Amino acid sequence: MKAIAVERGSSRPTLLDVSEPDPDAGEALLRTLRVGIDGTDHEVVRGNHGGYPVGDDYQILGHEAVAAVEDPNGTGLESGQLVVPTVRRPSTETESNEYFERGEPDMAPDGAYVERGIVGAHGYMSEFFVSPPEFLVPVPDSYAEHGFLVEPISNSEKAFEHAFAARSAFEWTPESALVLGNGPLGLLTLAMLETDSSPFERNYCLGRRDRPDPSIDIIERLGSTYVDSRETPVDGVAEAFEPMDFVYEATGYAKHAFQTVDALAPNGVGALLGIPNDWAFEVDGGRLHRELVLENKALFGSVNSNVGQYEAARDRLAELPDWFLDAFVTGVYAPDEAESAFEASDDAIKTVIEFDTP
Amino acid sequence: MKAIAVERGSSRPTLLDVSEPDPDAGEALLRTLRVGIDGTDHEVVRGNHGGYPVGDDYQILGHEAVAAVEDPNGTGLESGQLVVPTVRRPSTETESNEYFERGEPDMAPDGAYVERGIVGAHGYMSEFFVSPPEFLVPVPDSYAEHGFLVEPISNSEKAFEHAFAARSAFEWTPESALVLGNGPLGLLTLAMLETDSSPFERNYCLGRRDRPDPSIDIIERLGSTYVDSRETPVDGVAEAFEPMDFVYEATGYAKHAFQTVDALAPNGVGALLGIPNDWAFEVDGGRLHRELVLENKALFGSVNSNVGQYEAARDRLAELPDWFLDAFVTGVYAPDEAESAFEASDDAIKTVIEFDTP
Repeated sequence: MKAIAVERGSSRPTLLDVSEPDPDAGEALLRTLRVGIDGTDHEVVRGNHGGYPVGDDYQILGHEAVAAVEDPNGTGLESGQLVVPTVRRPSTETESNEYFERGEPDMAPDGAYVERGIVGAHGYMSEFFVSPPEFLVPVPDSYAEHGFLVEPISNSEKAFEHAFAARSAFEWTPESALVLGNGPLGLLTLAMLETDSSPFERNYCLGRRDRPDPSIDIIERLGSTYVDSRETPVDGVAEAFEPMDFVYEATGYAKHAFQTVDALAPNGVGALLGIPNDWAFEVDGGRLHRELVLENKALFGSVNSNVGQYEAARDRLAELPDWFLDAFVTGVYAPDEAESAFEASDDAIKTVIEFDTP
Repeated sequence: MKAIAVERGSSRPTLLDVSEPDPDAGEALLRTLRVGIDGTDHEVVRGNHGGYPVGDDYQILGHEAVAAVEDPNGTGLESGQLVVPTVRRPSTETESNEYFERGEPDMAPDGAYVERGIVGAHGYMSEFFVSPPEFLVPVPDSYAEHGFLVEPISNSEKAFEHAFAARSAFEWTPESALVLGNGPLGLLTLAMLETDSSPFERNYCLGRRDRPDPSIDIIERLGSTYVDSRETPVDGVAEAFEPMDFVYEATGYAKHAFQTVDALAPNGVGALLGIPNDWAFEVDGGRLHRELVLENKALFGSVNSNVGQYEAARDRLAELPDWFLDAFVTGVYAPDEAESAFEASDDAIKTVIEFDTP
């Protein structure tokens, strides 16, 4: 079958012909429909990942997928059912561990998991893959086209959940939110903040692009405000616009983690999702420390997501307007166009590889 | 009546003779028993505070108090009842505001409150004071001696509450805790972590003092481990001892806020309570940001406390062993010894001024 992988020693995606996987007892066989590409996939291609699957010199890419059940293989799934697979699996040395047993693989520490398509396990950019059913979240038949967005949305659902938990010891009624980054995850999160079920009334999205720009068009059509970081840096947002009850960082730019403290309103909370490399710089640590304390501010990091958050993401996806999804998905590629798919143009927002249709 | 105050232009405590306060309707008259001295009082004496009570050129000190109801004045309190007064009051321009109305003055932003004994309102270091009953937390008759500790304990109750809230979106079963600072608030918090009702099993307290030292004796008698920061800096604690599920910062040393990220275990949370001055220094912001994200770590600032947290503190105080309270309170001074009380020796831990006994 066709698979898009990165081979050892290479730093570009390659279309391979690999053998179809054979499901073990307790595993279903899935037929891949679509797999999205995100920043982590680019990192994996560039070689910034933790290791190839045991015994292989290539890593099949992709972790944002929607698939159809090809062979339930006694798992209780129904043939043809659409599903979204989760990313984390117990590490190869163990069958499971406490984090997986209680349904919280997203909270497992480094070493307790592999990640399909990212580190130590093959991803979903192949015509077929296998998985135990507990790592497959059923989605409606109508999700063939955009169901691959359930995975990135679930990461933000987790961040929202942790943000509200962090502020649950008092009455927190947030109104303003700032998304740092107008890349795919930033825009998707902004669209989530603009849904009817969101409590946020005024949303802002920070980027560094000139108009006309399709991401700025999306920001404004959503009803949000575009903040150009070249005019208003993150630590100037509170004064130029308003202090933010919630800041969601999706830039991976380390200074933003610290400037977030300044952007927050009293009692606000910042969620960090970017994964920067080492970078030493100066901060006014005394002032940041003091502001955190005197204004009861909070910061937390968030990675990955659990099945409950995938289910929330499935529901949230249904709330996103059609025009948004149409504008957001800017490229649909066939598997043999993988290299083009990974070379996104400046105007590209979200790129997806289509292996099959239902 | 006698009152210990700092006068405009002075930076030392002075015993004044001021007129007894006259309770307005809705206010009780309280007879002060004991008032503790903490770091904030020293800051106020040194002039680092926001302003004198309107119309006065002096600020009566003290916010850690226990008192007896002298005259209920129709408030429903009982004469002779022991109470602990809370610190924050609505700012002088307003009768109340939403934070006070919902019982969360601790979450009020700067400008929405004054603080008795700290900024804009007289404190409790006087023979009598007045207060509406909603700011008085009843305590048992046995609390005349140590009830003044309810206020500092309540600040840590709030920090504990916010820490558990911040980790309530998943199953968090913390075992290890590190208190940064072996001053009075650090030791008191360590004793709280060592009570039977605390889930923490292994507690550590960081300081920079040589043995023999009374605070180290207390740390070890509590069953905790002393960490000498000159041998093991905060960012070396995880390796030298163990990664910490909870870090409680009570040093006001800004670098500790950032090193806390390194001291934390995956999924851990750090509570910051110190109030440093501006101080610019270099951090590896990229690494700190990345560790927060990949290990789901959290940090938050916490200041002040609400009535519910005073009530929790009242219950917690009953759990602290007698030997601890005896060793912890190292000096009891009369009002006319105020200057000596504020000039604590190296061996002093907690100093209290006794105005009266029940």
